[in-house]
Amino acid sequence: MDKTELLALLQPDIEQINETMRSEISQAGNALLEEILEYSLLNEGKRIRPLLTILAARLCAFTRMPEGLAEEDELHPPVNLYRLAAVFEFLHGASLLHDDVIDNAGKRRGRTAANKVWGNSQVILAGDFLHTRAMTMAGTVGGLHALDLIGGATSAMIRAEFQQMLTVKEFNLSEKNYFSVLRGKTGVLIAAACEVGACFAEGSAEHQAALRTYGDALGLAFQVVDDLLDYLGDPKKTGKAIGNDFVEGKLTLPLIHAMKNCENKDFDRIMDLLKGQPADRENHLPEAHGFIEENGGFAYAREGAEALVEAAFESLAVFPDCRSRKILSGLAHYVLTRQK
Amino acid sequence: MDKTELLALLQPDIEQINETMRSEISQAGNALLEEILEYSLLNEGKRIRPLLTILAARLCAFTRMPEGLAEEDELHPPVNLYRLAAVFEFLHGASLLHDDVIDNAGKRRGRTAANKVWGNSQVILAGDFLHTRAMTMAGTVGGLHALDLIGGATSAMIRAEFQQMLTVKEFNLSEKNYFSVLRGKTGVLIAAACEVGACFAEGSAEHQAALRTYGDALGLAFQVVDDLLDYLGDPKKTGKAIGNDFVEGKLTLPLIHAMKNCENKDFDRIMDLLKGQPADRENHLPEAHGFIEENGGFAYAREGAEALVEAAFESLAVFPDCRSRKILSGLAHYVLTRQK
Repeated sequence: MDKTELLALLQPDIEQINETMRSEISQAGNALLEEILEYSLLNEGKRIRPLLTILAARLCAFTRMPEGLAEEDELHPPVNLYRLAAVFEFLHGASLLHDDVIDNAGKRRGRTAANKVWGNSQVILAGDFLHTRAMTMAGTVGGLHALDLIGGATSAMIRAEFQQMLTVKEFNLSEKNYFSVLRGKTGVLIAAACEVGACFAEGSAEHQAALRTYGDALGLAFQVVDDLLDYLGDPKKTGKAIGNDFVEGKLTLPLIHAMKNCENKDFDRIMDLLKGQPADRENHLPEAHGFIEENGGFAYAREGAEALVEAAFESLAVFPDCRSRKILSGLAHYVLTRQK
Repeated sequence: MDKTELLALLQPDIEQINETMRSEISQAGNALLEEILEYSLLNEGKRIRPLLTILAARLCAFTRMPEGLAEEDELHPPVNLYRLAAVFEFLHGASLLHDDVIDNAGKRRGRTAANKVWGNSQVILAGDFLHTRAMTMAGTVGGLHALDLIGGATSAMIRAEFQQMLTVKEFNLSEKNYFSVLRGKTGVLIAAACEVGACFAEGSAEHQAALRTYGDALGLAFQVVDDLLDYLGDPKKTGKAIGNDFVEGKLTLPLIHAMKNCENKDFDRIMDLLKGQPADRENHLPEAHGFIEENGGFAYAREGAEALVEAAFESLAVFPDCRSRKILSGLAHYVLTRQK
């Protein structure tokens, strides 16, 4: 399934998700608040998280059907499933709004970041509003188990942010720590998006667990590829400057692996750069790139991402080979081939 | 009931609330996060909101009892009620942490504000964590109706913040707007604290409504007294500089009423000050004080607070004249007599 085909299959659900979000936002009850929410949410976002909730639910619903009772594409998800799916985009949006304030961001997705359009106060409060609405909808639409899963994932995300703050200046970040932060910052919410969809459609315990595993692997693979694109991507496509992570002194998998595998004198040289100034690191970006390449860092991260996507494929083996499973496999494949 | 007697009756519940909060915080799962939460929550706070939840629950539980089956002071609230009560202190704490960042506060409750001890990033994230935990506990402990009530109250609080931002620079704030912002910023959460306690103890619809009305009136009275203390309080007791609201150009009930009642030339004079600089307003504080006094602003606000406390008393009339009702009446009375 190529990207065009995949997007065409996803388009009707994306439109429903956007419509659901638009309707929720229009009930916020304050013009300024609604303006901020529209600006930050009704954009060109890929809607990956809510799509996963809907696809997981549809897959479980179809799998439970007695054979021949319905064609899969006739399974119209109930309105409430779209509202439950939107919870994940709201939570993601709330965390991006607060990140904009925390990072004092200038840009987000190619546009002026919300904190530069309004003030920090408005952006913090708009994030809080999204958060509150998301948690309330999680419970009232998805039930207490969904609320508990989503609350657990959100707590884990914040814990990972604190863990990252504590480790970011250590420069001896282990691969284990790297994956732990990655899982907290992205994996748990994506895994919850899948699991909550499966719960909503009353999938079996085995099916719920399979979709959680799929989401976890997909989320990690996505982030590893992100870290690769930071060094190897085409800035015209990614919209980000190349080598940004290295300039910021942020250790990601390619560099972590290279530093583990290199000779002592090269290790010391890279460590000196990491402990130095960002401007100096920017000047030595080609050197860092060569260092990672020579010590197998890029290849290792690429293989890691492939293994994660393979694990995501495998976790889907418990389901029949139907349309939703094909789309979920297609999404996992897309993660590996994406260039932005 | 005097203040000492009231506090002695509340003390055992306050200790249980603090113990519950301490236990929840210790499970946050990150040392730095736990440190921030302890600093901001385990202080000398009055715990008004969680106390209201517990008292409302106990009052409903006792009222439902067949006569003579139990003495009221033998009704030990279940552990879960304390967890549900703690939700309100967590939500209040989350909003104070974010307010510290928004206001760039230097002090909070006489101590260095959290954002000056740590950074904005950590404080925003700690607030988010509290918020997530509170909403999750609201649902899993209190059930979906409690979650919906609490989510509604939290959304209304944020809406009121936005409303205040839009009106703060208008200087023609009506009494109606003033009470609408007051209700959003304090009343709804206090009303929800009472109503959720009543729901938890399965109080009748009439009893739930009575306690909601009590909480709403109590919350408004508390804030009106706060606005009076800002002009008339003893800084040694309140810990705040006198006339702060006027210096900041913030219109509260005493000033709103005086401006409505005064002669045109006095109105213009005060409006000039409001549109001027804070330093200038500080110099003219005695003049503003005299203006409010002469135009009956203090007396009007005082009478308003008394009428609200009277309404709070009256709403309790549907309950038997028992210990919990006496304490709730005592709290309402305390609101009027408090000096800090």
